[in-house]
Amino acid sequence: MAEPDFPEAEFEKRLERAQGAMRADGLDALFFTTEAELRYFTGFRTLFWQSPTRPWFLVVPATGKPIAVIPQIGAHLMASTWLEDIRTFSAPHPTDDGVSLLADCLSAYGKVGMPIGRESALRMPLRDFRELTARLAHTEFADASDLMMRLRMVKSGREIALLREICGIGSAGFANAASLFHEGQSLKEVFRTFRIELLRQGADDVPYLVGGAGQGGYGDVISPPTDQKLEAGDVLMLDTGATKNGYFCDFDRNFAIGGASDEVRAAHEKLVRAVEAAAAAARPGSTCSDLFSAMTTVLGQQDGDVGRLGHGLGMQLTEMPSITSFDTTELRENMVLTLEPSIGLGNGKMMVHEENIVVRDGAPEFLSTPAFREIPVI
Amino acid sequence: MAEPDFPEAEFEKRLERAQGAMRADGLDALFFTTEAELRYFTGFRTLFWQSPTRPWFLVVPATGKPIAVIPQIGAHLMASTWLEDIRTFSAPHPTDDGVSLLADCLSAYGKVGMPIGRESALRMPLRDFRELTARLAHTEFADASDLMMRLRMVKSGREIALLREICGIGSAGFANAASLFHEGQSLKEVFRTFRIELLRQGADDVPYLVGGAGQGGYGDVISPPTDQKLEAGDVLMLDTGATKNGYFCDFDRNFAIGGASDEVRAAHEKLVRAVEAAAAAARPGSTCSDLFSAMTTVLGQQDGDVGRLGHGLGMQLTEMPSITSFDTTELRENMVLTLEPSIGLGNGKMMVHEENIVVRDGAPEFLSTPAFREIPVI
Repeated sequence: MAEPDFPEAEFEKRLERAQGAMRADGLDALFFTTEAELRYFTGFRTLFWQSPTRPWFLVVPATGKPIAVIPQIGAHLMASTWLEDIRTFSAPHPTDDGVSLLADCLSAYGKVGMPIGRESALRMPLRDFRELTARLAHTEFADASDLMMRLRMVKSGREIALLREICGIGSAGFANAASLFHEGQSLKEVFRTFRIELLRQGADDVPYLVGGAGQGGYGDVISPPTDQKLEAGDVLMLDTGATKNGYFCDFDRNFAIGGASDEVRAAHEKLVRAVEAAAAAARPGSTCSDLFSAMTTVLGQQDGDVGRLGHGLGMQLTEMPSITSFDTTELRENMVLTLEPSIGLGNGKMMVHEENIVVRDGAPEFLSTPAFREIPVI
Repeated sequence: MAEPDFPEAEFEKRLERAQGAMRADGLDALFFTTEAELRYFTGFRTLFWQSPTRPWFLVVPATGKPIAVIPQIGAHLMASTWLEDIRTFSAPHPTDDGVSLLADCLSAYGKVGMPIGRESALRMPLRDFRELTARLAHTEFADASDLMMRLRMVKSGREIALLREICGIGSAGFANAASLFHEGQSLKEVFRTFRIELLRQGADDVPYLVGGAGQGGYGDVISPPTDQKLEAGDVLMLDTGATKNGYFCDFDRNFAIGGASDEVRAAHEKLVRAVEAAAAAARPGSTCSDLFSAMTTVLGQQDGDVGRLGHGLGMQLTEMPSITSFDTTELRENMVLTLEPSIGLGNGKMMVHEENIVVRDGAPEFLSTPAFREIPVI
């Protein structure tokens, strides 16, 4: 039997906060189709979401515990969570992948919130969603994206403990860089070696690992590895989202292979100083745009192609809010953020640096072991 | 610069087949928001889809090459693909995450197909999709789910070569089971050890690894590992979806720890014989439901909680079609399928077995090294 990642009290607290927000917004229920939201309220954690075949539904009423409306294949695992009302359908089904069961469940509510705004997706066939709303002619569907952001962006002590653990694992992996990476090694081998290192250090999984290498910088920050071999003068960047118990770290490190040019050293120092400036500004009551300003002041340039200089972190590699010029979300104690300044170096090259912090009443706590201003040389 | 997984000829062929199907269905363009579909037509491969922040769009016109409408952060990587028309927007954006740019692009077409049926999702905010369709009052959106299934379910020679490689890696990993797993080992340690083994054998990543262990069977087939320790009499099952170059294997193996009861031995033999029966029935012209019948005849029972006895395999862990009683999809040469019989053992326990095959004109090719009827003992 699966072991819950949290005691029931954690889920009771999440539900209590959600139901308070629902009352404030006049919502009778929340409706979800996506992994993070189902897991947030139930603890239901499985890699089975990799299969697009079956939809999964969760209804969170304004009073009472959440109701799972899920494929039969998930009944055994869902029974290990704190939920009591688990309704299952046979899936795949020739004609009705849960729509009737879901419509029955939702028909009890007049106004239903679901995330349809920024960063949301509809993880069920649009055809089925249209059928559902047609059957629920008297139900109003409202956007609950902001409500969910407000709930999820502030982490509990238990969530922060898990985030601290996986960030520690990431830091321990990067600390071994000098023994893992070397000139002449292909990027594919670099990635493979680092994945194995993170698993050895205690990560459950490494769902995200991207990076690049090049003379004096790299071209982007989202690419898979190639057969390109590390050469003297390269800057190697690895950005990792490893997980443990379903929580992510998300930070990167830069390494100079053989040695670094003055330009690369200056860029690295500027990136680290931008993080320091953002951390100094990260207090309850300041805003995401304040952190953005703190970083761009140090960088002397805007964010370029990446579009932001950090974001929320937790059950997903990236969560709301975004550290942009226009995101005025106010920081609150126990928000977990990435600070991720990037800098264009001309000639199509760039560098990026990233740390993970918890907003505290005072100086933030670094979850990742902060990098030095001096770029490490391998 | 990223190295394409395929030469341009592969994408030209995919486009040619798609455009033929679009003409037959009277579609002026196809529109996609999801990873597999974007990658199918472009070769754009990145783990950055882990971040839910930014939507990504692809438009495939009835004539001419696909058009990417994507966040600026992806421009550099998309430029390494065969696409020429790459339109980018700044993201996240305060008010317009690509909707205007996408509406401009789609306004050229009268009838646009998109997958809205079985197994599909809408990976963009529903609010933005509604805005898009409101702006395109003269554009008809039609369901292209079946069209996409017909295209993707038959694999090219190059795709089959990649699938053969990753299935070989999975088989090599399982072949070392006796040296990897042992009595007293926790399931968490079993999973960690097997992930590392698959990476060592050459996998790029192990996005899917589930399993279970128990006396005489296990409770479900989608659970993450626990601290439970392997004991004599346990049946250990591991089901892995490892990837290389973006293609998945998906098969499992059962191991008896210490020894197996007669019941477990009989169940394992029955599962392997069910695979053999399905493989014997797997010929061009037979249907998914024929394979289902071949397996249930051997098993002496229906599929139970899982809902099907196999599925398509390729760029995703599970693809259409499904091996069910009601899926009458006709098998065609070069379809890649998993054969995945499962059996209830009473007392809430079950066992499952899975192999990966290519449908050939004659006997199918096994991509996974087939298991013996006798359950292996560790």
